[in-house]
Amino acid sequence: MKWIEGGVTAATGFKASGIHCGIRPNRTKEDLALIVSDAPCVGAGLFTKNQVKAAPVLVDKESIKHETHRAIIANSGIANACAPKDYENAVLMQKVTAEALGVDPKEVLIGSTGVIGMSLDVSKIEAGLPVLLNKLTSDQSGSELAAKAIMTTDTRKKELAVEVELDGKPVHIGGISKGSGMIHPNMGTMLCYLTTDAAITKDMLQKALKEVCDISFNRISVDGDTSTNDSLIILANGMAGNELIAAENDSYQAFKEALKALCIELARQMAKDGEGATHLITCTVSNALDEKRAEILAKSVIRSPLTKAAIFGCDANWGRVLCALGYSGEEFNPEKVDISFASAAGTIAVCEHGKGLPFDEAKALAILKEPEVIILADMHEGTAAATCWGCDLTFDYVKINGDYRT
Amino acid sequence: MKWIEGGVTAATGFKASGIHCGIRPNRTKEDLALIVSDAPCVGAGLFTKNQVKAAPVLVDKESIKHETHRAIIANSGIANACAPKDYENAVLMQKVTAEALGVDPKEVLIGSTGVIGMSLDVSKIEAGLPVLLNKLTSDQSGSELAAKAIMTTDTRKKELAVEVELDGKPVHIGGISKGSGMIHPNMGTMLCYLTTDAAITKDMLQKALKEVCDISFNRISVDGDTSTNDSLIILANGMAGNELIAAENDSYQAFKEALKALCIELARQMAKDGEGATHLITCTVSNALDEKRAEILAKSVIRSPLTKAAIFGCDANWGRVLCALGYSGEEFNPEKVDISFASAAGTIAVCEHGKGLPFDEAKALAILKEPEVIILADMHEGTAAATCWGCDLTFDYVKINGDYRT
Repeated sequence: MKWIEGGVTAATGFKASGIHCGIRPNRTKEDLALIVSDAPCVGAGLFTKNQVKAAPVLVDKESIKHETHRAIIANSGIANACAPKDYENAVLMQKVTAEALGVDPKEVLIGSTGVIGMSLDVSKIEAGLPVLLNKLTSDQSGSELAAKAIMTTDTRKKELAVEVELDGKPVHIGGISKGSGMIHPNMGTMLCYLTTDAAITKDMLQKALKEVCDISFNRISVDGDTSTNDSLIILANGMAGNELIAAENDSYQAFKEALKALCIELARQMAKDGEGATHLITCTVSNALDEKRAEILAKSVIRSPLTKAAIFGCDANWGRVLCALGYSGEEFNPEKVDISFASAAGTIAVCEHGKGLPFDEAKALAILKEPEVIILADMHEGTAAATCWGCDLTFDYVKINGDYRT
Repeated sequence: MKWIEGGVTAATGFKASGIHCGIRPNRTKEDLALIVSDAPCVGAGLFTKNQVKAAPVLVDKESIKHETHRAIIANSGIANACAPKDYENAVLMQKVTAEALGVDPKEVLIGSTGVIGMSLDVSKIEAGLPVLLNKLTSDQSGSELAAKAIMTTDTRKKELAVEVELDGKPVHIGGISKGSGMIHPNMGTMLCYLTTDAAITKDMLQKALKEVCDISFNRISVDGDTSTNDSLIILANGMAGNELIAAENDSYQAFKEALKALCIELARQMAKDGEGATHLITCTVSNALDEKRAEILAKSVIRSPLTKAAIFGCDANWGRVLCALGYSGEEFNPEKVDISFASAAGTIAVCEHGKGLPFDEAKALAILKEPEVIILADMHEGTAAATCWGCDLTFDYVKINGDYRT
């Protein structure tokens, strides 16, 4: 497996584009993205577990059952959730796109992200479709415009691609994603659209997506808020010409490993671009009794507002890390726990067997000033490990969210 | 029942004092509190459920089993948690206080709050004890000094008292508490010391404390962080002369109601004084299937960082409220939910049957500018209700916690 340039157009047979169609008042920001495959695809999707589901999620949960898919259309600016006629508008958005592409409505998956409670004016999307279709390209520029069009408070576009060889054929998987607030590990927690030219059955694609999501997107948290709109969708058009993956064979494993690398990196980029974030925080809990437990413990640390604020302040306040492990809901012996901080500037042990160690404050400060900080907790009770990703809590998080709607 | 002036010295036979003994560098801030009863008391306590328990909590969990108690001593500045010799120091703190008072060590309950991981120098407490004992007074000034001595990042002291008539005798209950960060409903979540001159058995006292805690302190959240040191303790010395409460009779109910009023108000004051808070947020979920469910839903709202940031920005962003209800873990029909905001400036309906209502933004702003804001969610599915309290997420929360330790 190797990293390659590109995003959703890296896989053979996929085109993408993005335009400003008028949903957002700011005319310099794209607000409508389209991804289209030349050939019919099998699709798989995972959606928010929030009881309050946005209309596009309700539509997609039905449409994803269809045998084939051809396109994904998504807008930013308005979430099309909890608004009058939200479901009707979602169905209409799917219908006008399908008509423009000449495909079955169920072959089109849809997404929306933005403010909850405002009505989506689908006539703007309908009016924009001819331009959107006209701009479709298999160049990276198309993927880039699509990636920009789904951004909300994101400060950086997230666009990545990998290549893996299956049966001697190069297979590509690429993706774009958005998400920096309302991010919490409970399924998708964002919009993420992946494309691949792998030949794989719908069942195997769904299985790979679920397995990978559980250890990538479901292990990030920006603020503990699980959105109403979270969607993770992958389309596979089979154009790479590998032997169809229809079982958990070696090709499935290789495909899944490549998908995993891609999703973990997209997840890390989302955490790093968390609203107002100045640090990407990685927490690895090791030597735990089992992986689930390690994950719960690590998530508790990356969710802790006090830990997040301490990292913002470059404060090696390991007591808050131990405290967060302690209220995770998992029972353990605190007197076995070791804690260290690490970054590109080095590693420093700060707590051993549950008690503070004397440490060099200047060295700790240098480590925590790096943009990527790792918190290591060794439970000394088993052999399992898990890693979760989050970001620090900053003035800007409060600023961004104190006046997002108005 | 009526509200009266005072705190832990409002009940007959209780004295209190507070001094600066040198644990905190700032000499103008008291850091050691003492509460003493003239007569032996029965005591009841509830302690943090965090797996990482501070040494004073471990000591108190044993000591609270003792038949009688006489005093509570507590310091601020250092949490005496996860530090070398923390348990030995907690035992020593209890021992030197018992010796100074001439009582059994188990009759003394102890508390610490402050930075985790630093060693507590008990010699400073020992050296301060003669002055602390000398300053003991049944005047309110003693309670006030004790209330100040347990404050950390609190900006206001919390000190309240009530009077209730039992068997024709005036019975008093008073308390002091601290807590503005690391506050989350999972038991005590703070230091809170209550005293009463009621005659009540240890069993009935513990029962009343548990029942009241569940609907007061366990329903507040500042940041979702459950501290290692949370302790809620009540001492009852029986000096009011009422008939001993030994069963769930009318006097028990009257006592419990008075205790409930006191604890809810102390809890509200803690939420209001949440680190950096500019708003007290009350969330009442009504017409839910049952009370537990209503509580889970209300807690999810007051914990939501996005909702908290929106209230800071006086933004009537009800979508975040509905979203937070949605990820509470409880299943419900979003299309039944109504949401309103209320305050001293009025009430405004913003969402009906899960969809946004057109509303007057100027009126909403006026309502949300008040220091106490109420979020009302009507589930339209049953008759149960629950109220939880929290505060907004502000720049100052980040500032306070970004550089607390260093």
